[in-house]
Amino acid sequence: MTYKEYRHITENLQKYIAQKNNARIVQLLDGLHAADLAEILDELDFEQALYVIRLLDSDITADIIAELDDDLKEKILESLSAKEIAEEVEELETDDAADIIAELPEDKKVEVISHIDDKEHAKDIVELLRYDEDTAGGLMGKEFIKVNENWNVLRAVADMRKQAEEMEKVHTIYVVDDEDHLKGRLSLKKLLTTSTKTPIKDVYNNNIHFVNVNDSADEVARIMQKYDLFVIPVVDEIGRLVGQITIDDVVDYIKEEAEKDYQMAAGISEDVEADDSVFQLMKARLPWLIVALIGGFASVIVLSGFGNAMNQYGTLFFFTPLIAATAGNVGVQSSAIVVQGLANGTLTGSVWKRLIKEVSLSLMNGIILAIILLLIGKFLLGHILTGFDLKMAITVAISLVSVIIMASLIGTFIPLFLHKRGIDPAVATGPFITTSNDIFGIYIFFTIAKLILGF
Amino acid sequence: MTYKEYRHITENLQKYIAQKNNARIVQLLDGLHAADLAEILDELDFEQALYVIRLLDSDITADIIAELDDDLKEKILESLSAKEIAEEVEELETDDAADIIAELPEDKKVEVISHIDDKEHAKDIVELLRYDEDTAGGLMGKEFIKVNENWNVLRAVADMRKQAEEMEKVHTIYVVDDEDHLKGRLSLKKLLTTSTKTPIKDVYNNNIHFVNVNDSADEVARIMQKYDLFVIPVVDEIGRLVGQITIDDVVDYIKEEAEKDYQMAAGISEDVEADDSVFQLMKARLPWLIVALIGGFASVIVLSGFGNAMNQYGTLFFFTPLIAATAGNVGVQSSAIVVQGLANGTLTGSVWKRLIKEVSLSLMNGIILAIILLLIGKFLLGHILTGFDLKMAITVAISLVSVIIMASLIGTFIPLFLHKRGIDPAVATGPFITTSNDIFGIYIFFTIAKLILGF
Repeated sequence: MTYKEYRHITENLQKYIAQKNNARIVQLLDGLHAADLAEILDELDFEQALYVIRLLDSDITADIIAELDDDLKEKILESLSAKEIAEEVEELETDDAADIIAELPEDKKVEVISHIDDKEHAKDIVELLRYDEDTAGGLMGKEFIKVNENWNVLRAVADMRKQAEEMEKVHTIYVVDDEDHLKGRLSLKKLLTTSTKTPIKDVYNNNIHFVNVNDSADEVARIMQKYDLFVIPVVDEIGRLVGQITIDDVVDYIKEEAEKDYQMAAGISEDVEADDSVFQLMKARLPWLIVALIGGFASVIVLSGFGNAMNQYGTLFFFTPLIAATAGNVGVQSSAIVVQGLANGTLTGSVWKRLIKEVSLSLMNGIILAIILLLIGKFLLGHILTGFDLKMAITVAISLVSVIIMASLIGTFIPLFLHKRGIDPAVATGPFITTSNDIFGIYIFFTIAKLILGF
Repeated sequence: MTYKEYRHITENLQKYIAQKNNARIVQLLDGLHAADLAEILDELDFEQALYVIRLLDSDITADIIAELDDDLKEKILESLSAKEIAEEVEELETDDAADIIAELPEDKKVEVISHIDDKEHAKDIVELLRYDEDTAGGLMGKEFIKVNENWNVLRAVADMRKQAEEMEKVHTIYVVDDEDHLKGRLSLKKLLTTSTKTPIKDVYNNNIHFVNVNDSADEVARIMQKYDLFVIPVVDEIGRLVGQITIDDVVDYIKEEAEKDYQMAAGISEDVEADDSVFQLMKARLPWLIVALIGGFASVIVLSGFGNAMNQYGTLFFFTPLIAATAGNVGVQSSAIVVQGLANGTLTGSVWKRLIKEVSLSLMNGIILAIILLLIGKFLLGHILTGFDLKMAITVAISLVSVIIMASLIGTFIPLFLHKRGIDPAVATGPFITTSNDIFGIYIFFTIAKLILGF
C-alpha cells in the first residue's frame, strides 16, 4: 500500500467514525491486511481506534490487535472486557494469543482464560504463558503437525488432514514416537510417493535441527539463521515435541534486539520510538545523562587537583576536551567490537590475546594521531596558542598515545567482564565507557604533563 | 553441534590433513552440514582449508564456500581456477552462485561463466549480476515454480513436477499470463482438490504481495517482516515475474545492516569483526579518530579564545569536559532516535514538530540536570573548588541547559538533513555528532560565562 492510499483511507475513516457511519467503515476497510489496518489504527486517536476494533469482526480485529504499537495495544486491552479479549484471542494462533494475555494484569489474565471456549486452545496458552519471553518457549506456538512413527502412511495422511484444518499453513510434518519424543521429519514428497501401507518408521528423515524449550531466543535466532531454517521444532527437557517456532517471529526478535542494542549504545535506557510522548522519552534519556553528569563532576574534581598548573601551563587546559573526546571515541570503538564479537561468536581466543591485540592496534593508531597532532601543533597552533612550545606539544602527544591505549583497554575489558558476570555487555557501550574514559583520560593527561613539565 | 564436538572434529581434521590421510578426512566430515563445515574451515589455516575444499565433492564444497567468512572465501576463490569455481557454482542456487561470482575480478568472472555447462543456469546468473546487491534483484534467486493461467490443473501439475526437480524446496506456486506477468498464487490444497480439467484461471488467488526488482533491500525486508512472509516474488519494470526472495537471505541482510549501523554509531567506518587483523581494524577505526582529532583542535582554538578568563575564572575550565560530554551524550541520544525513526517509519509529522518536541524534552532534562548540578555544587564542590561561588554555579547551570538544547537540535537536525539529501543518516551518529557538539557546547558555555561573569 502506498503512502497516498494510507492517507486516503485514514482520512475517510476518521470522517466516517465522526459520522458513526458503520456501513461505510466496514466497506472502506474490507479486504485490507491486518498489518495495514494496524498501521492505520496507530495513526488514529485511541477512542477512534477502539471504535473500529469494537465494530469489526473478531477474526480480523484479533490479528490487528496483535500487530498494534505497544502503547495503543495496552490501552485497547484495558478498555476491552475479559470476555471481549477472550473472543479475540480465540481467533489467534497460540503464540500471538499468549503474547496478548501476558500483557494483562494477573487477575484479568485468569478471567480472560476462563472465557476461552476452546479448552484445548486455553490449555496451550496457559502452557505458553509459563515460558520467559526471551526463550524458545516464549517464541514458539503450539500449532504444528505431527505423526506417530508407528502409524502407516494411510493413517498419517488421514490424521494430518484433520490436524491441518486448524492451521494457517503447514511447514513441516514432525515424526514422534508413542511418548511424543521428536524423532525426525517427513517430506511431503516421500509421503505422496510411498505406498499407503508403509510404516512411517521406514520413510522419515531423522536428520533434523531442533531447540530446547529453555534455549535463549538468541540461540534460536543463531541456529535458524545458520541453517537457513523457516521453522524449527521445540522439545522439552526430555525430548518431547512441544512446539514450533516460525522465522517471522525470529525476524521480529532480531529487529527488536538490534534496536535495543543501538539505543543502549546511544545511552537510551528504555525501548522508545520517535513518536512516543515527551515524558516517555525523558524517562528513557534522563538516567544516563544523570550518570554522565556525576561522572562529569569526577572530571571536574580531577582537573581541580591539577589547578596549580594553570598559572604557568594554562594552555594544557585547552586540550582537555580533545583528550577526553579521543578517549571516549576509542573506548566506544573498542567496546562496540567486543560487544558484537560476543554476540556473533567471532570473539575467539583468550582475554589476554584480545587485550594485546587492542594495545598494538592502539599503539599504531595513537602514534599516527600523535604525529598529526605534532604537525598541526608545529604549523598551526604554535602561532595561535601562547605557551604551546615543543615540550608541551610532546607532552600532549605522549598523553594522547597513553590515553588511547588506556581507553581501548577499558573499552575492551568492561564488556568482557560484564559478559563473564552474566550481564548484557551492551549496557557498557556508550555513555558508561565515554564517561569513565573521560575521567581516566584527563587524569593520565595531567599526570604525564606533571611528570614532563613539572608543576 | 556443541563446542566440544567442534573442537574434536577440528583437531582431528588438522591431524589428518598433516598426514594427508584423505580417507580419514572424508569419513570425519561425512554427513556434516555445510554451515558447520564452513565454521570448522574458518578455524583452519588457509592452506588447510584449501586442501579440504579440493578434496571434498563440489556438491558439498559449493555450499561450504558460500558460507565461509569473507576473507577466507576471497582467498579460496583466488586459489581456485576458473574451471574449478565454475564446478562449484554449478551446484549452487542462482542467488548464491551470483554472490560468489560477483566477488571475482572482472576477467575471471567472464571465464568462470564460460565454464558453466548448464547454459540456462549461466544465463540466470548473468542476469542476477546486473542488479545492485542492496536491491530486490540483488537478493532474489531464479528458482521458483510458475504455471500459466491458461493451463488446466492437469497440465499445471505435470509442469510443476518437472520444474520442482531442480529445486531444493517449493514454497509458493506463482501464476503468470502468456507474457509472464505475475497474476497471483496457487494453493497446493486447491490444486489437489480441484478437477484436473479446471483452468488455473478459475482457481488461483490474485491477492499476493510482491516487490519490484529495483526496490531497495530495506523495502523488501520491511514488507516481508510486516506481512510475515517466508518468500516474496519479484517482478520487473513491466510486471513480469523474474525471481523470488526467501526470508533466510533477508534475515542475513537485516543482521548485517544492524551490525553496520551499530559500528557506524561507534565510529567504525568499515565492516570489521573482532577476529580481523590489526591492520584491517586500524583501517576501520583510524578515519573517525582523525576527524575527531581535527574537531578536537577546533575546541582547543575555541577555548584559547577565552584564555583571558583564566586568571580570574580559572575554575570554569574545570567544567569544559563536563559540558562537552553532556553535549555529546544528548546529541547521540537525539540522533539515535531520529536514525531509528527514519529506519522504521515511526518518525511522523513535520521537521518543526520534531524540533519543538526535542526542545521541550531538552528543556525538562536540562532543568533537572541543572538542579542536580546546583545541589552538588552547593554541598560538595563549593568546599573543594576555589572560586566556585553561586554566580559561577548559576553560570554553569544556565550553560548546561542551553548546551543540552543546542545539542539535541544538532542531533536531530543533522540526520534529518542527511536523509533529505539521500545520505544514510546513520553516518551522522556517533563521533560526528559528538565532535561537533563538543565544539559548539564549549563555545556556548564560555559565551554565556562571558556575559554573566564579564571577562
